Amino acid sequence: MRRAPLRKTNGPIVRFYQCAYGTRMIKSRSRRRTNDPVGLRNRVLDAAAQAFQSSGYGATSVHHLIRATGVSGGALHHHFPSKKSLALAVIDERVAAEVAATWIERVTAAPTAAQGIVAVFDSVVAALEEQGSVGGCPLGNLAAELALRDDEIRTSLADRYDDWRQAITAKVEQDRSVGQADYAGGDAAGFANVVIALFTGALTIGKADQSTAALRAATRQLTRWTAADL
Amino acid sequence: MRRAPLRKTNGPIVRFYQCAYGTRMIKSRSRRRTNDPVGLRNRVLDAAAQAFQSSGYGATSVHHLIRATGVSGGALHHHFPSKKSLALAVIDERVAAEVAATWIERVTAAPTAAQGIVAVFDSVVAALEEQGSVGGCPLGNLAAELALRDDEIRTSLADRYDDWRQAITAKVEQDRSVGQADYAGGDAAGFANVVIALFTGALTIGKADQSTAALRAATRQLTRWTAADL
Repeated sequence: MRRAPLRKTNGPIVRFYQCAYGTRMIKSRSRRRTNDPVGLRNRVLDAAAQAFQSSGYGATSVHHLIRATGVSGGALHHHFPSKKSLALAVIDERVAAEVAATWIERVTAAPTAAQGIVAVFDSVVAALEEQGSVGGCPLGNLAAELALRDDEIRTSLADRYDDWRQAITAKVEQDRSVGQADYAGGDAAGFANVVIALFTGALTIGKADQSTAALRAATRQLTRWTAADL
Repeated sequence: MRRAPLRKTNGPIVRFYQCAYGTRMIKSRSRRRTNDPVGLRNRVLDAAAQAFQSSGYGATSVHHLIRATGVSGGALHHHFPSKKSLALAVIDERVAAEVAATWIERVTAAPTAAQGIVAVFDSVVAALEEQGSVGGCPLGNLAAELALRDDEIRTSLADRYDDWRQAITAKVEQDRSVGQADYAGGDAAGFANVVIALFTGALTIGKADQSTAALRAATRQLTRWTAADL
């Protein structure tokens, strides 16, 4: 069952896991001269983020990015003098923005932390089933592959986890301050770590299984545990 | 704080995260002829498993393995005609054996599933603090990097998750059949997925943070949640 194609649904689309960070193929573009350096840089970042997600950083070659974007080798080198600089830009611009859009903004705006967290899990499950493919967590994939290879990259990855953790922690503490359930047992930062770990790990299992079963199970258990108000 | 060196303790050593799958350097050996093909194959597998863990699969070159093991290129090619065959052997022999030793055997032998699970988390935290470095989960690292690149590798990774999940599921169901707490809410397989996701994700965060904070938080919350008998 776990290898059956994911069920298609008409659930909402989450940009994080569906578009820039999905696993669809990027169409090749013919090489062209451009006087739009910002657009060119963005095309390279989009293609790199997508290739890192589906093939890994190690397997993504500059040649692949040149073919995928139509950017010349010289222009690519001008914006990203090294592959490491490209990894840092993907983490600090693309991954950070998507953690913000998928998690930070939605949890912050939710009625309670628990409702916001469960809503994010639910919408990612729906988006992955709509997409029919699980690519894993963009931040988690890069952390698993790269964190021990370069300390500057590792620090940048750790900063993204920090932002994510702080947003959930702040919401949990805010809930508690207005008398909502203390499902974190007084340890808001620990609870935030647990939520991020569950999401990251369930997407890693899902990438191997090509299934949303682990993500669905995490949603069910989080719903039970946060409703219990231990 | 998260970037401070991990505190050293005298905790027990868990082979999975400390030795073959740790992050210490392998000493180079001088090349030598050998009439011990099994030993030679094992040396290559050990070196490959360790390099995948610390540098990723993509960054591990055959040249690195030749230098690390002293094996000739011809002998290496004889045992592993392709890098993919090496990945499959690492997953099916080294990673499978370590999931069994760290998780399956210990949870199966524990008084209850909850006690076994918490004991594994505790011992891995202790081992990582003793080691002073977090390398992530060997299975999770390879799943995050490789699952979408090759379907045979993905299937092999999914089989490892299956074995792991089945062992926890069986223990949870056994606990329930003898009247222990039903902390899984009737969904033993879902609970197993959640435990594996928590462990995998907390090790990924820990690899970025070089901290055991997420793993410790997961241990605390799992202890609370399983004790609650919702």
